[in-house]
Amino acid sequence: MPTITTRQSTHPWTGPHINSSRLKKDIFELSQIGLNETDKGIYRPAFSAADMEGREWLMNRIKSAGWHAEMDGAGNVFGRKDPEDSGSVVLIGSHIDTVPAGGALDGALGVLAGLECLRILDELGLQTKYPVELVAFSDEEGRFGGMFGSQSFIGDMTPERIYNAVDADGIFLMDEMKACGFDPMSALDARRNPESVHAYMELHIEQGPVLEQLGMDVGIVEGIAGLFKWQVRLKGSANHEGTTPMNMRNDAFLALADFAHEIPRVLDENGSEQSRATIGKVELSPGFPHTIPGQAEFTLVVRDTYSEVLDDLGVAFRRALSAIARKASLMFEFDIISRIEPTNNDPGLVDIIEATANKMHLKNRRMYSGAGHDAQFLSQICKTGMIFVPSKGGISHSPAEWTDWHHIEYGANLLLNSVLAVAEHEQ
Amino acid sequence: MPTITTRQSTHPWTGPHINSSRLKKDIFELSQIGLNETDKGIYRPAFSAADMEGREWLMNRIKSAGWHAEMDGAGNVFGRKDPEDSGSVVLIGSHIDTVPAGGALDGALGVLAGLECLRILDELGLQTKYPVELVAFSDEEGRFGGMFGSQSFIGDMTPERIYNAVDADGIFLMDEMKACGFDPMSALDARRNPESVHAYMELHIEQGPVLEQLGMDVGIVEGIAGLFKWQVRLKGSANHEGTTPMNMRNDAFLALADFAHEIPRVLDENGSEQSRATIGKVELSPGFPHTIPGQAEFTLVVRDTYSEVLDDLGVAFRRALSAIARKASLMFEFDIISRIEPTNNDPGLVDIIEATANKMHLKNRRMYSGAGHDAQFLSQICKTGMIFVPSKGGISHSPAEWTDWHHIEYGANLLLNSVLAVAEHEQ
Repeated sequence: MPTITTRQSTHPWTGPHINSSRLKKDIFELSQIGLNETDKGIYRPAFSAADMEGREWLMNRIKSAGWHAEMDGAGNVFGRKDPEDSGSVVLIGSHIDTVPAGGALDGALGVLAGLECLRILDELGLQTKYPVELVAFSDEEGRFGGMFGSQSFIGDMTPERIYNAVDADGIFLMDEMKACGFDPMSALDARRNPESVHAYMELHIEQGPVLEQLGMDVGIVEGIAGLFKWQVRLKGSANHEGTTPMNMRNDAFLALADFAHEIPRVLDENGSEQSRATIGKVELSPGFPHTIPGQAEFTLVVRDTYSEVLDDLGVAFRRALSAIARKASLMFEFDIISRIEPTNNDPGLVDIIEATANKMHLKNRRMYSGAGHDAQFLSQICKTGMIFVPSKGGISHSPAEWTDWHHIEYGANLLLNSVLAVAEHEQ
Repeated sequence: MPTITTRQSTHPWTGPHINSSRLKKDIFELSQIGLNETDKGIYRPAFSAADMEGREWLMNRIKSAGWHAEMDGAGNVFGRKDPEDSGSVVLIGSHIDTVPAGGALDGALGVLAGLECLRILDELGLQTKYPVELVAFSDEEGRFGGMFGSQSFIGDMTPERIYNAVDADGIFLMDEMKACGFDPMSALDARRNPESVHAYMELHIEQGPVLEQLGMDVGIVEGIAGLFKWQVRLKGSANHEGTTPMNMRNDAFLALADFAHEIPRVLDENGSEQSRATIGKVELSPGFPHTIPGQAEFTLVVRDTYSEVLDDLGVAFRRALSAIARKASLMFEFDIISRIEPTNNDPGLVDIIEATANKMHLKNRRMYSGAGHDAQFLSQICKTGMIFVPSKGGISHSPAEWTDWHHIEYGANLLLNSVLAVAEHEQ
């Protein structure tokens, strides 16, 4: 094997540093668990064998660092120095489950950077007022419909939900948990006393193109956008395209096209700079080249960082649909599939992270997260803060997901130094 | 069984009439062959067992009428009085194969009304200069990709096409023909000497809503619209809808929507009153609610009665696609799946049919056919004429396909009297 020289980052920060070789090694090791050699994707869906293997691996890594590792009834993994210490903690971490064919960093980066912070605290003998605790929440990717680990952790769980939770293939959470050796109802014991958590801090890849396109090193996350998701059906008449003149049609697809065409206007008139609206799935019936579509069924996902803006957008999109359907003599109906309120990180934590980033001379920018994260549930019981690092090409949930090593280093070092500030490092 | 009185049509025409009870009985009998009791649809796809059963039934009906029945190597069924007569004939008929879950009239009406005409000629002892011959062409519905029967009849067939013809389920024409007892290559013997056919006349359901909406009894078909069919792919980037701001997207579906939104303008600017454009099939990739569509693949079918208009529309649609793709930073590509030239029926025959309809006091209107028919191939070798009757609700290719009995009577009587005129009834 040749001797390879890896140049360390030339970043001018002279305070506490993580050991980037060690972090890289952990990222690489974990990325081999659940790796599919054919598509190079990582398959660690929650409560799969690979997911459990990843959790075991993580617990061993925590123990190797000289920390106490444990798993709660929801599958959340923790690393703490003194299991008897009942003091309020600064929790740091993320998740290590993946979507099918996921990448090496979504979730794993936050957990492994957190683990590296623990090691550095020990190695540099840094004392903090609030003990630092590592967490890897289970099922952040929502295989079973929610964020099972963090929801259980904050007490947002019931026996009925555990009983009914099922994945897209019809596999029940109960069965998967039992196969992994869990008593599913013990997830109800995963609730943590809110007073025992001072703050939650998470490093995560951005999963979008903003930081890369703006040339930023890190993003300081102010909050997480809320959303509503509709399933809409426009109903016209299916007829032979050759024999039905244009003025005798009730073409459900043309009505959908008119609606989609209005999206930019509706956002301009009713939305904010953070508003997003997406039609990602469309099904035409009968869906034949020579038949005018009698029905167009589609999903509409709308996001914003303000609840009121979401409300306004809902009204405006409903009006646009209604006007287009009326004009084209179509019926429409829609189901509200979900509504998730926007959440805000703690302004004090956001300020601390930003000040730390500035002190470290990292090019940074405040931003909102368009994707959901465990922090949105944790914010119900404690102060939360999040750091983003750039995603190359804005890509995530894909084997092509990546972040340059120097950005990973910047993000992990910003986490370390922000944690020291939030946990009140006694200098 | 109760005695049911069916009132005869009160139509004032006093010339030769078909026997509508007999025609009804034939329509009912044939509709039982291939009938699916569950969906009430008729399944007689070309060269299926039910299709062959229908052909056998038809040949028996022809023989019962005292005519000579025969089937050629392409599966076309003929009924003629004197098989030795080598005179040029007036061919009348249509087809009896159906689409899956088809109705009782598409094709069958033209054949059975033709059969009824033969019987009336005999019963009334009507002599014509040109012998009248009945035909039921095979595979008009294009199970194997074309109109196999009429194309073979006019000589538009090759061994290679017979060898390669395959249906949507991957079943080869060769295999289906062999299973029905045919030597597939004998379809090449089905070619008829053009000089032996004076004219081809066909009664068919409109399959569209025009006659019904205008309150017409019959339509006089001037020609059959041509078409082009494209398969278009708009290619953008699939990204997470939550994390990708609106101004950093390459949303393939929004581009498709913008294109579809332009269809009415493109038709207004470049088309005729007969122009039609339809997007009937759309497939988004990856097609997930939370992913911005990276690709939108769709079919575009455009029809008009003039070849030049089709050309102009092709140019205009290409320009629209190109401008939208450029503006949205997308790539696009398209395959031309098919191009069929418009065809015209014989102006002399159109005049005769129209004059006959007027003489019969039938509310009639000249129109073009938006759907394809055997006449479009027959027009390459002989004069052609077509009659439409109204389709209830414009519906065809469905168990719901129907035409009121009095319209069926009007159409069949117009066929009879037009045939007498075209075949030069010696009064």
